[in-house]
Amino acid sequence: MHPRTGLPVVGMVGAGQLARMTHQAAIALGQSLRVLAVDPEDGAALVAADVLVGHHTDLAALRKLAAGSEVVTFDHEHVPPDHLRALVAEGFTVYPGPDALIHAQDKQVMRERLSALGAPVPRWAPVASVEDVVAFAAAGGDRPVVAKATRGGYDGRGVWMISDPSQVRELLDAGTPLIVEERVPLVRELAAVVARSPFGQVAAWPVVETVQRDGINVEVIAPAPGLSEERAIEAQELAIRLAAELDVVGVLAVELFETPDGIVVNELAMRPHNSAHWTIEGSRTSQFEQHLRAVLDYPLGATGLTAPYVVMANLLGGDVTPPRPGATPRTEPADHHHYKPPADMTLDERLHHMFAAEPGVKVHLYGKELRPGRKVGHVTALGDDLDDVRRRARRAVHWLREGRPPMEGQTS
Amino acid sequence: MHPRTGLPVVGMVGAGQLARMTHQAAIALGQSLRVLAVDPEDGAALVAADVLVGHHTDLAALRKLAAGSEVVTFDHEHVPPDHLRALVAEGFTVYPGPDALIHAQDKQVMRERLSALGAPVPRWAPVASVEDVVAFAAAGGDRPVVAKATRGGYDGRGVWMISDPSQVRELLDAGTPLIVEERVPLVRELAAVVARSPFGQVAAWPVVETVQRDGINVEVIAPAPGLSEERAIEAQELAIRLAAELDVVGVLAVELFETPDGIVVNELAMRPHNSAHWTIEGSRTSQFEQHLRAVLDYPLGATGLTAPYVVMANLLGGDVTPPRPGATPRTEPADHHHYKPPADMTLDERLHHMFAAEPGVKVHLYGKELRPGRKVGHVTALGDDLDDVRRRARRAVHWLREGRPPMEGQTS
Repeated sequence: MHPRTGLPVVGMVGAGQLARMTHQAAIALGQSLRVLAVDPEDGAALVAADVLVGHHTDLAALRKLAAGSEVVTFDHEHVPPDHLRALVAEGFTVYPGPDALIHAQDKQVMRERLSALGAPVPRWAPVASVEDVVAFAAAGGDRPVVAKATRGGYDGRGVWMISDPSQVRELLDAGTPLIVEERVPLVRELAAVVARSPFGQVAAWPVVETVQRDGINVEVIAPAPGLSEERAIEAQELAIRLAAELDVVGVLAVELFETPDGIVVNELAMRPHNSAHWTIEGSRTSQFEQHLRAVLDYPLGATGLTAPYVVMANLLGGDVTPPRPGATPRTEPADHHHYKPPADMTLDERLHHMFAAEPGVKVHLYGKELRPGRKVGHVTALGDDLDDVRRRARRAVHWLREGRPPMEGQTS
Repeated sequence: MHPRTGLPVVGMVGAGQLARMTHQAAIALGQSLRVLAVDPEDGAALVAADVLVGHHTDLAALRKLAAGSEVVTFDHEHVPPDHLRALVAEGFTVYPGPDALIHAQDKQVMRERLSALGAPVPRWAPVASVEDVVAFAAAGGDRPVVAKATRGGYDGRGVWMISDPSQVRELLDAGTPLIVEERVPLVRELAAVVARSPFGQVAAWPVVETVQRDGINVEVIAPAPGLSEERAIEAQELAIRLAAELDVVGVLAVELFETPDGIVVNELAMRPHNSAHWTIEGSRTSQFEQHLRAVLDYPLGATGLTAPYVVMANLLGGDVTPPRPGATPRTEPADHHHYKPPADMTLDERLHHMFAAEPGVKVHLYGKELRPGRKVGHVTALGDDLDDVRRRARRAVHWLREGRPPMEGQTS
């Protein structure tokens, strides 16, 4: 407990935007967030009072974070599991615990566990050789196959579409541990996000649609438009069951593929997640507050929506041509590798224009420079008319990114 | 501009709860809030990254705050006007400027200016002697008279009900500069809060009812129940006119008395104000974000409500017997001088109970210890049914303060 306030100190490994937004929530709750930052100019380190500079792979740094904290939790999944087990053995509270977190760190462990639990997953197999991939593809009638690094991938990294099984040789030769999965016939992507406390209370937000571009989430729509109540409940129940079975404490985001035959689990994240940034304005309790309440074993907050539709759009070097409202959202090719911010207008100037154009849109900037492919902020719009809400979110992002309004064809 | 983010640095004089909540808003906007704290354990200093320790009456400390800040603004009004004029003369941007802020610092200056502008004010007079008070009372047919210190009063301090004019002799002898006012026949108190940018854009929130106990605001109801549209518009137009006439930049809170004959101005505040804390969850744009947008001359944000009714209740050593919903709200006697927090339950434990009882109520704690008469936090409830919303806000405050639910008679 903080000596001055008598309220909890929470230690967070990592000081990116998730820690930054968690800090905002911690302030309201009277708590003190202590962050472990790799760089003193990390997004959260720029705004938090209690910053330790150190690496998440350094056990001594993790111990320093844990000492005096009621609980250690995470902005990312890149902490070595053995270090977390060491902290637990030393009596520190770590949520989510290492035996839960491993399912968000290792795709093979996750797939094995989900298969054992009978949770819906794509057909998959571990890979030790090119022959494994050949056999896997043949057994599936040569349907498209995806190779995934079991560790370290995110935002589309660590994922390869396999047109020729020999492609994996290079990856295996480089020592990349792999699994293969059948590429599912994708209708769209969804996310079911819940939070769970050590006591076992679980709270679920409405299931959302997540729109990806080049493997990066660019837009989240809450609730997922046109999702049947039956499928929404199925997704929520799945997330709640996984949270309990894996003994997750904190936020659990279950990324889902919706296929013509139903939902299958893509990935798990055990921390505040991009697919629930909309909850800051769009839900009675934000995922950041809920994560803090969960890891501290407070009763959880109400998760109702504050408007019929809430749309979050990521600000990144890549959102030039968002899918048109009304068009079927799906993964689309990205142009963000070619992105250059407008040379004649600073981000601050672009913010002026955005505010003038969209006085009702809320902005969240992460303290990072705008670079190709990098998430540097997001915006949230709310309202009754989904097309209008999406249009406002996209207009706002376009202004921030390009310094001009989108052309008509891009917004209507 | 911050060298890392390219976005503004805002210097705020004072590091109390207003600065603490402004910091939360600054984080979202990508800004850096630098606070001038008297004590390194002030509420905002506990959670902000950029803290200068120094006194607001020390010009050198103010200069240090101003250097490298795009703008200097305020958590309170206690900065000597001459210091602010010095900063302006040295080229620093100060919003609100000293010539505006003086109207929130000196009640006589405020009353003179408002009278000159024809704004509705109680009958008042400057006081140099007991005879002035006698003459003032006689001219009003001996209606009740209030003496007010022209400077330094807040939360009921610096205000004296005068039953015998000789009472003021002691105050005058002590060197307290005074004015007297006729005590108006109070129906209730209201507040009209607006924000204004240097460009001259003004945004107004709905007029609210502020419920006081012993001169301290304990509850704010947005929008003010039963207020006619005509009177609401009159109050908003008055606030907008005063913001423009006084050249206010930032948030202006106009505290109003509603009397049987109409509204009169009680006081002015030129900073985020307790009467608009409800805007954090209850309005599309919070007063803290709006204040930052205003002092940086960004276009202002939308001020619509997020629910039909929003109720904010202050957590202070004194809110034991809030007025019952349905009863006519008015100033009531307080018991907070006798308040003792429950000895067998910590604030953290009380917070557990409150969260369990009221999962939809939002809490804001200021990093202060709970002491008699001190504002240490607030809660906000929202919904369609005003009685239910008030009841939930009061139950939450009661749990936090007393560590038990209110008795039936206290909540229904």
